[in-house]
Amino acid sequence: MDTPPTDRLPRTVDWAGDHLVAIDQTRLPHELVLVELRSVDDVIDALVRLVVRGAPAIGVTGGLGVALAAVLAEHDGHDAVWVQNQAARVRSARPTAVNLAWGVDRVLALLTDVVDPAPLVAEAVRMVDEDVATNEALARRGAAWLRGRVGAPLRILTHCNAGGLACVEWGTALGVVRALHEAGDLLEVVADETRPLLQGARLTAWELDRMGVAHRVVVDGAGATVIARGMVDAVVVGADRVAANGDVANKIGTYPLALAAARAGIPFVVAAPESTVDLSTATGADIVLEERDPDEVLSWRGVRHAPSGTTAWNVAFDVTPHDLVSALVTEQRVIEPAVGERPG
Amino acid sequence: MDTPPTDRLPRTVDWAGDHLVAIDQTRLPHELVLVELRSVDDVIDALVRLVVRGAPAIGVTGGLGVALAAVLAEHDGHDAVWVQNQAARVRSARPTAVNLAWGVDRVLALLTDVVDPAPLVAEAVRMVDEDVATNEALARRGAAWLRGRVGAPLRILTHCNAGGLACVEWGTALGVVRALHEAGDLLEVVADETRPLLQGARLTAWELDRMGVAHRVVVDGAGATVIARGMVDAVVVGADRVAANGDVANKIGTYPLALAAARAGIPFVVAAPESTVDLSTATGADIVLEERDPDEVLSWRGVRHAPSGTTAWNVAFDVTPHDLVSALVTEQRVIEPAVGERPG
Repeated sequence: MDTPPTDRLPRTVDWAGDHLVAIDQTRLPHELVLVELRSVDDVIDALVRLVVRGAPAIGVTGGLGVALAAVLAEHDGHDAVWVQNQAARVRSARPTAVNLAWGVDRVLALLTDVVDPAPLVAEAVRMVDEDVATNEALARRGAAWLRGRVGAPLRILTHCNAGGLACVEWGTALGVVRALHEAGDLLEVVADETRPLLQGARLTAWELDRMGVAHRVVVDGAGATVIARGMVDAVVVGADRVAANGDVANKIGTYPLALAAARAGIPFVVAAPESTVDLSTATGADIVLEERDPDEVLSWRGVRHAPSGTTAWNVAFDVTPHDLVSALVTEQRVIEPAVGERPG
Repeated sequence: MDTPPTDRLPRTVDWAGDHLVAIDQTRLPHELVLVELRSVDDVIDALVRLVVRGAPAIGVTGGLGVALAAVLAEHDGHDAVWVQNQAARVRSARPTAVNLAWGVDRVLALLTDVVDPAPLVAEAVRMVDEDVATNEALARRGAAWLRGRVGAPLRILTHCNAGGLACVEWGTALGVVRALHEAGDLLEVVADETRPLLQGARLTAWELDRMGVAHRVVVDGAGATVIARGMVDAVVVGADRVAANGDVANKIGTYPLALAAARAGIPFVVAAPESTVDLSTATGADIVLEERDPDEVLSWRGVRHAPSGTTAWNVAFDVTPHDLVSALVTEQRVIEPAVGERPG
């Protein structure tokens, strides 16, 4: 089978000397727009509005945001306490992604009493490069595990966007897809549209289209039927947080796919960097699930389709219990929670 | 507990002396508009444009349309052949809806060589009244079963719109909700939005709002989490077809709710009239699942959100295996497929 060329993207988020540059994911799939983030408010706004989204990219953006705060502090004469305060604001922009606190704290650890931005910037840039290397490693490991377990060529179901757009490059679940595709071992990807923000239909479909991967979108309620009817060989998703017992928090709508995969007897694979594993969280029951604005559910493009007296419970994540997780693939290892292995 | 008053709806479709009156469901939830259907063309247009939708309501509208043709024939001096031709036109307005042919043929059977509209009108009105009585009976039976199994007051999760708007009055799954509500035994309903056409967010939410029922909408992917987190006591849905072994075809996204309910140990209840039970279909595997236009998934209000190179698999129904169906409630009986009972 031929190996189709992959149309390379700009990095999702990167450092540009004295500010951040990011792909504005709210404009995809129709426009590829790069935005400059020149203040801490810009960074927080980009995180809250999902200009930058996806756990690994959020983590890197957190680190870059602290580096930016240090650069601004030196320029404007702020002290180390100011930088710490800005870091705390960045850390709390999104509650569920453990990577955000991880990225913020990793760069903040290099802050000294007299603000010197150079080591913080160097560490943040190192995080950017590490993200690329980490994802490529876990992508190849995940592809190898799937070939060994299922064979090839493969048909994959994925949810939300755990792609290059969720990281700096490569992606986690879509990194596995890319590794399979580049090896000629991929037949098709079915992508859940992923309501309410349609990251699957907008972002995953866009990445798959750019990679030249055969793909179809389904509504979220159809994922279980795709699995039950034997239309895919495995489910591969990313993760926002993995608890010490192997429970996995990921985009709302992941858990029912794991239930359906278990019933159909196909692998349910979580592809995520080690930084997603949070040993301080014992089980999924300890994970706070972010609840977002009900209008994301009740309206589309500013036009409300629900009655005015109706509200929504807009929970952004769910928890998949460890017994449904066939494999957790990181850049370092494969853990099989469904057969009793634990990440911590 | 007090019994809150129910703000009664006009019937979804009804006979008004010499014409039909219907709720225009294309205007919901923002406006409650009643339209008069005074010609056979009006009736056909209402069916084609989904002014009237829902299998039971479509069937009744077919019968009323034939009665209208007979009334017009007498008034305008047309013969019985003309009435038969008009009936054939109504029957083919929605060629995939089996209920439509059933309703048309039931009234047309009373046509005589010399057109006398009276018996046709009487039969069509009888169909309207039967639909109401059937749904009220199964609604009360379902409410009683739930009280006996779970206790009261109850919190219910439902999917799509199996409400009064899909029938003449009461509804099936929402009929159960109404019966519980009128008895003061209902705390809250969580309604899946039901992509791609959002019947849950638009129509079910509107009915619940009118009834004064506390309710929240969730994206379809969140239904399993609502169940897993103990936020509801039972799942109640309608059905488009029930096979002889108890497998249930219903709106896409129903099956994952049944998986989640089974795991959580809460009842998964299907409320549907006996006419939905199709003993000529042995199992769910024998049910052909309708696939609709991919644009329903890839666009919203005519604006495309997916990349131009992307397509969709827009399957409209799924099959829930009988072992996941705690109870099938009809106007005549309760069957418990999960413990081995079979409808046929």
